[in-house]
Amino acid sequence: MTTDTHITAPTRFVEADGIRYAYRRFGAGTGTPLVFLQHFRGGLDHWDPSVIDGLAAGRPVILFDNAGVASSSGETPDTVEAMADHVATFVNALGLTQVDVLGFSIGGFVAQAFTLRHPHLVRRLVLVGTGPRNGEPLSDRRVLQVASNPVPTLDDFLFLFFAPSETGRAAGKAFWERRHQRTDQDPPSSLQSAQAQTAALLEWHQPRGERYAELRTIDQPTLVVNGNDDVMVPTVNSFTLSQHIPNAQLIIYPDSGHGSQFQYPELFVTHTRLFLEGDQRPL
Amino acid sequence: MTTDTHITAPTRFVEADGIRYAYRRFGAGTGTPLVFLQHFRGGLDHWDPSVIDGLAAGRPVILFDNAGVASSSGETPDTVEAMADHVATFVNALGLTQVDVLGFSIGGFVAQAFTLRHPHLVRRLVLVGTGPRNGEPLSDRRVLQVASNPVPTLDDFLFLFFAPSETGRAAGKAFWERRHQRTDQDPPSSLQSAQAQTAALLEWHQPRGERYAELRTIDQPTLVVNGNDDVMVPTVNSFTLSQHIPNAQLIIYPDSGHGSQFQYPELFVTHTRLFLEGDQRPL
Repeated sequence: MTTDTHITAPTRFVEADGIRYAYRRFGAGTGTPLVFLQHFRGGLDHWDPSVIDGLAAGRPVILFDNAGVASSSGETPDTVEAMADHVATFVNALGLTQVDVLGFSIGGFVAQAFTLRHPHLVRRLVLVGTGPRNGEPLSDRRVLQVASNPVPTLDDFLFLFFAPSETGRAAGKAFWERRHQRTDQDPPSSLQSAQAQTAALLEWHQPRGERYAELRTIDQPTLVVNGNDDVMVPTVNSFTLSQHIPNAQLIIYPDSGHGSQFQYPELFVTHTRLFLEGDQRPL
Repeated sequence: MTTDTHITAPTRFVEADGIRYAYRRFGAGTGTPLVFLQHFRGGLDHWDPSVIDGLAAGRPVILFDNAGVASSSGETPDTVEAMADHVATFVNALGLTQVDVLGFSIGGFVAQAFTLRHPHLVRRLVLVGTGPRNGEPLSDRRVLQVASNPVPTLDDFLFLFFAPSETGRAAGKAFWERRHQRTDQDPPSSLQSAQAQTAALLEWHQPRGERYAELRTIDQPTLVVNGNDDVMVPTVNSFTLSQHIPNAQLIIYPDSGHGSQFQYPELFVTHTRLFLEGDQRPL
C-alpha cells in the first residue's frame, strides 16, 4: 500500500460525531486491517516500531488515539464501554466493515468491550497485558504511585513494563531507544484524559453480573498474551481470559512483565501472525 | 540422516544396566536430539505421526519406551524419579551428551525429574499436558475409571484426550486414524507396568518440601503446552509450571484437552520449532 513505517507514517484525522480522531494507517495493501488500542495515557508513539512494522508486513495496520487522547479532539469518556463505542465510530468513519483488534492493557479492556458491543465489526481479537472486568487487582501499591507520575522516567517505565532481571532491563532499554526514534511524536495526553481513564479503570474493576460470564459470549478467535510477571495487570488475569473466552489461545512469555511484546518483538510478531493468518475458525 | 518416518522407523534396542531399552531414532542428521517421554501406559506408537515427523524435519528425534514399558525389558519402577534415572541411563547408553526432552502427561513428570536430577544432559524442555509435583488433582472421578479400562476404546480416548465439542471429537478421530497407520505397532504395556506407573502417579501427587520450590531450580528454557480444558492433568497446572520455572513460555490452545498437540499438530510443531530453534538462553 505505502512504504510508510511506524517512524514515517503521517498522522491522519477523520471526523465523526464531532470528534476529530487521530490515526496512522500503513502496511500491506490487502488483508483485514489490524487496529491497535493503546495503554493508559499512551498515544500513537507508545507502540514498538519492531512490532508494528513486523505486523504491517502482512496486513494494513491502524494506530488510533481514542477520543481526547493525545492528538484526538474531544473528551476522554470515563467508562471502558464509551471508549469502545468511540472505536466503533472511528472504524465506521473509515468505511471499514470488519477489523482485527489488538488491545494492550486498558486498550485490551476496550478491545473486549468493543467486541462485545460491536461483534459484527471484529474478525479476530488480540489481548495483550490485560484482563477481564472485575479481574484480580494489582497487589503492589508502588505500581499505582509510579504509574501516576506526571512524566514517566525510563526507570518508571522499566519498573512498570519489564521484569527486574538484567535481561528484562536490557530489553526495556532497547525498546525505549526504538520507541523514541520518531522525531514528530504524538503529544502527551491531557490531564482530563488521564483522569477519565483512571475513572474508567476503577469502574472496570467493579463486578457486573456473574463474574467473567460475558467472556463466554465472545465468539471471535482470540489470542491472549502476557509476560509471566505483570505487575500492572497480574498475569493470572490472562489465564482467566483464556479459560473463559471459548476460542482463546494463551501465550505467556518468560522473564517479562506488562510489556512482554516489547521484550520479544520478533517472537510476538511471529506468534501473532500465526494466529491472525491461521485457519482457526469461530467454534 | 535417514528417510525413515514415524510409520517406517524400525524399533531398535540398546542395553544398559541389565535393561534392553526399545527406541526409534530418525529425522534430520544434525541438531540436538529430541527425546520423547510418553503418557501413562503408552508406547512408541502413541505419538502423532504428524507431530513427530514435523519435528523430525529439523532435528533427530528419539522415541523411547522406559523400563518395563511395551517393548522394553525390565520392570517399570514405581517412582517418577526412578523412571527419570532410566532416561539418563538410556541417553548415556546412546552416547549422547545433551538432549532436548518432550514429556507428555506422566512423561512430563519424568521429564521434570530427569531435568532436576541430570541437568547437564538437558538443553531445553517441552512439557505437554502435565503438571508439577503435588499439583492440583483431577476433579472428575469418571476420568480415573475410564483411564483404567484394560483396552481403551475410541470413545474412552476421545473423552480423556479431547474436548467434547464437535471440533474436538473430529480432531480426535483424525488423530486416531493417523496413530493407527503403522501395522507393526509397539505392543501394549504389561499390567506390571501400568500398576507401577499408577503407584508413581500417586507418589507424584504427594507433597515434598515447599510446594513448587524445586521448579525454581530448573534453569533450562522450557515450553509448557496444554489444552484449555485438560480433564486428566487440570490445565491450571500448566499455568503453575510457567509461573515457577524461571524461563518458561506457556501456550494453551482453545477447545482442547489433554491431547492438544494431537488436535493442532501443525501449529504445535510450528510453536515447538520456534521454541527449540529460538535464541532464548538460560537466564
